[in-house]
Amino acid sequence: MRNLVILSFVFASASVASAQETPIQHDAEHYLLLEQHADKWAAEDSKISETLEEIRTAQNGKPPNIVYILLDDLGFGEIGMPDLDVIRGYSTPNISELADEGLSFMRMYTEPTCTPTRVAMMTGRYAVRTGTSEAKSVVSGDGLSAWETTIAEVLSQRGYENVHLGKWHLGDIEESFAFNQGFDYAEHPVHQQGQMAIMNADAELAGASAAIAPHLRTDTYELDAGFRVKPHSMVYGIIGEKGGTAREVNFEPGEVFTQEHYMHMEENYKNRVLEEIERLADGDKPFFLNYWPQLPITLTLGNIDQAQTLNGGPMAESIAMVDGWIGEILDKIDQVGIAENTIVIVMGDNGPFMQYRWRSGQNDRIYRGGKNQHLEGGVRVNAFMRWPAAIEGGSRVQDIVHVTDLFTTLSRLSDADQYIPRDRLIDGVDQSPLIFMGDTNGRRDYVFVYEGPTLRSIVKQQFKFHLPEPGANPIAAPVFDLYKDSREERVDTSQTIPLGVGYGGLFVDMMKRHLGWKMKYPDREPGRDVPYGGIENLRPETQELVNRFVFVRELMSR
Amino acid sequence: MRNLVILSFVFASASVASAQETPIQHDAEHYLLLEQHADKWAAEDSKISETLEEIRTAQNGKPPNIVYILLDDLGFGEIGMPDLDVIRGYSTPNISELADEGLSFMRMYTEPTCTPTRVAMMTGRYAVRTGTSEAKSVVSGDGLSAWETTIAEVLSQRGYENVHLGKWHLGDIEESFAFNQGFDYAEHPVHQQGQMAIMNADAELAGASAAIAPHLRTDTYELDAGFRVKPHSMVYGIIGEKGGTAREVNFEPGEVFTQEHYMHMEENYKNRVLEEIERLADGDKPFFLNYWPQLPITLTLGNIDQAQTLNGGPMAESIAMVDGWIGEILDKIDQVGIAENTIVIVMGDNGPFMQYRWRSGQNDRIYRGGKNQHLEGGVRVNAFMRWPAAIEGGSRVQDIVHVTDLFTTLSRLSDADQYIPRDRLIDGVDQSPLIFMGDTNGRRDYVFVYEGPTLRSIVKQQFKFHLPEPGANPIAAPVFDLYKDSREERVDTSQTIPLGVGYGGLFVDMMKRHLGWKMKYPDREPGRDVPYGGIENLRPETQELVNRFVFVRELMSR
Repeated sequence: MRNLVILSFVFASASVASAQETPIQHDAEHYLLLEQHADKWAAEDSKISETLEEIRTAQNGKPPNIVYILLDDLGFGEIGMPDLDVIRGYSTPNISELADEGLSFMRMYTEPTCTPTRVAMMTGRYAVRTGTSEAKSVVSGDGLSAWETTIAEVLSQRGYENVHLGKWHLGDIEESFAFNQGFDYAEHPVHQQGQMAIMNADAELAGASAAIAPHLRTDTYELDAGFRVKPHSMVYGIIGEKGGTAREVNFEPGEVFTQEHYMHMEENYKNRVLEEIERLADGDKPFFLNYWPQLPITLTLGNIDQAQTLNGGPMAESIAMVDGWIGEILDKIDQVGIAENTIVIVMGDNGPFMQYRWRSGQNDRIYRGGKNQHLEGGVRVNAFMRWPAAIEGGSRVQDIVHVTDLFTTLSRLSDADQYIPRDRLIDGVDQSPLIFMGDTNGRRDYVFVYEGPTLRSIVKQQFKFHLPEPGANPIAAPVFDLYKDSREERVDTSQTIPLGVGYGGLFVDMMKRHLGWKMKYPDREPGRDVPYGGIENLRPETQELVNRFVFVRELMSR
Repeated sequence: MRNLVILSFVFASASVASAQETPIQHDAEHYLLLEQHADKWAAEDSKISETLEEIRTAQNGKPPNIVYILLDDLGFGEIGMPDLDVIRGYSTPNISELADEGLSFMRMYTEPTCTPTRVAMMTGRYAVRTGTSEAKSVVSGDGLSAWETTIAEVLSQRGYENVHLGKWHLGDIEESFAFNQGFDYAEHPVHQQGQMAIMNADAELAGASAAIAPHLRTDTYELDAGFRVKPHSMVYGIIGEKGGTAREVNFEPGEVFTQEHYMHMEENYKNRVLEEIERLADGDKPFFLNYWPQLPITLTLGNIDQAQTLNGGPMAESIAMVDGWIGEILDKIDQVGIAENTIVIVMGDNGPFMQYRWRSGQNDRIYRGGKNQHLEGGVRVNAFMRWPAAIEGGSRVQDIVHVTDLFTTLSRLSDADQYIPRDRLIDGVDQSPLIFMGDTNGRRDYVFVYEGPTLRSIVKQQFKFHLPEPGANPIAAPVFDLYKDSREERVDTSQTIPLGVGYGGLFVDMMKRHLGWKMKYPDREPGRDVPYGGIENLRPETQELVNRFVFVRELMSR
């Protein structure tokens, strides 16, 4: 449906379809929309290609740099919305300023936990398709498969230099590490930060965890010396370069994790971001800097000298601090003179960890639910994007966007969409039209929401369908009108406006199309291997953990 | 503590204390704050008097006009906050623009229902002190007493012309009508709008009410012909001038209420506001225009030709429509050239009617609870104030403000505070410092929240104390940290951070001071009389209702 000829002479500005004969392969639902809007979309796509070409020309042919900042466990209403300062008892002036200077995605959907959201952004695919839909907290010997193509790999092909700093959490096996997934250079912890922020003695003293600190227990009945969590045995943070080996840094044999280690690690990542911006700005290549702080997650008050917020909770204090860091990063981008053609995105990865909300300073917000839940509170986040060369400040769009769309859209904006693989299903759609033409020009009106490997709800337009219990009649399953019942509470149909006979059935049809399409593109297995491959300097206690893993694996294959 | 001499030569700019020997009498809690801030506050007060004098001089000696728009049943998060448009599925661009041009009170407390909030604004006193703490929905023969001094009466003494248009709901007796409470001219319904918006056949057909339309029932067993609600027997809307009699308008004997009557009434009030602004702007006097729409309350979809909002609920549509009306009013104020020296306030009167939320298009919001409840969702509202001559646009204050403070503050800003009576307790404090000096300069850090005549909770700073059940130990009653637990949900102390031993006791002390102070200033009775006194043209069915009232009153005094 697109004209494959007229644009083919300008390779650099070629649209997806003109770059390769085979278009990007999407989920069934996409083709229902394409069928209705094909002509309009094709015309818009040509126009956008021209616009992108013009912007690049104005920038000496250079596609935009990308600085992607993904904050951990921050759901909708927690950053960049000054109207809510009085509720939260803290403010995020730097993120608010970024919002004023750029575009606010008011309806950004993520997956409900860290690993799935991060995989979805990196691959443009629901995590469930990649076998990494579970957020692991212990050594697992699996992770993002080498078969998957990340946004870093796509951008590499277009000549980008890619750096990753901060949280990663896409697996503890060699192929999953960032420098083996498209980044030229990476510094990252191997696991999630619970290992550092919650599973330490400071956090145990603060009542945020239990059975961590050896001095607070005896081992009288511990027949299995390997069962109990030994967070310090797990690898801390590693550094590596593309194609090379890795080494663990800043942690010595026999050391145990403390809050101080954690804060030091986080400050270091932030400082490295500032250094890398200077270095990368000096280079000839466009760059992709992926900064995923482990903060704001922190659960002890012990490291607060003097609270800076009215709220005073450890998470609230931490959010305010990280907002200050983002201010430093934005200042640095200004100082080195690259602001105009640098896309900066700041967003949360999923809702807050509600189990900790009573001690964290986070509170119950507009939407119900949080991390790990398919409810809006789990999968709706604030997301802001600044790109002065292309986006007018103070823009705001209410169309549905899914985190996978960043993969596709950033590839397009970077003139790299021709490198998106055509041999697999890509959930992300190209939202460039939304960015260039504004509200109502989005290309998605649906989201499938998984909790781990389980499809739990389907969003279409303003409606949300919660999948019924196994065996229940899906036609009677609750369908919520998110404008009239934002908290998805009115399950009792005597308390709700019945959504017209048929809505349940329409959602069942969507579910069947989505699951049926998996016959063409089956969900895949994750990569599997011995943990911590390619790390040169494993500590003895880490090697012991690996030995246990190998023993168990052999046991299970007997 | 204030210098009573230096300012006394300029009567027009005199501060409260210099105008009269006796200062305004406040609740005990005020004096604890005054004791701590006396010198600072006195210095600020002098400065503010100078500033006000300067502003008046610049405006040819004229104090500001006041246009006060009070919207019905709109809690915090429902107007003027574009960040929340995506949640609500509607927007209020005109109110948002007003907010951008003025000051947002981010922590405005009201009382939890219509009548109490309106009495509190009009008298500067908690409604419970005036005997009008109950929002009546049927003929009651009582209302705001002539003894009370309203803001209109205060402003009258300073030479203001006062006009009231729209909802009133301060009683159905002659002395309570607006033109007997300080307004030179008034047009208002006597009762609340449930009589019109809910208790009509259209609403019954829409399922919003029952047993209203005579044709939808039989009277087979109705021994008491007077028990059932006959909304059309109650007086509809009246017009009157200061000191005169009233007449009922636009409703004929035998007519019954319809949604069309209601919408016509509301459009008429809005159009009259536009006319009155033209007339008043032409006059020599400063004016106080009190516009209290009955909308947005509406519960039928029958009058919607084409939904203008994504939400589509009758309340959501109505809010958007009223926002448009406010735009017309603001345009008119501009057109007649009085914008600079006109204070415009737009606010809600209490949270939404949660019983109707499932059909209204309103939804569960940030705070829990709604109308009739002491929870934050019942008593927190959006409030915006524009006064170009004095207030910088885009200001935002998070200090606690109570609706009674408008009485005191508007009196001060209008140079009329010397007319505030000194023989009674005034709950409202002067918040001029907050308006002129901004955030953190408020003069209140507490609110007592009543439901009807019952004290239900006490707010102090970020904490909120729910009064315990009778007989329970108040020291163990729940105290909520509103930043960490905005929805006041974590009653289970195992789920909350204990607020330190002693907080319960401190709140009990506040309660004792507040109630003890009532020995000096006891709560009063409302005015009482035969309903509808002074209305010239009572319909026969209305007279029948009055006869029944008189019969019952005599019965009860036998």
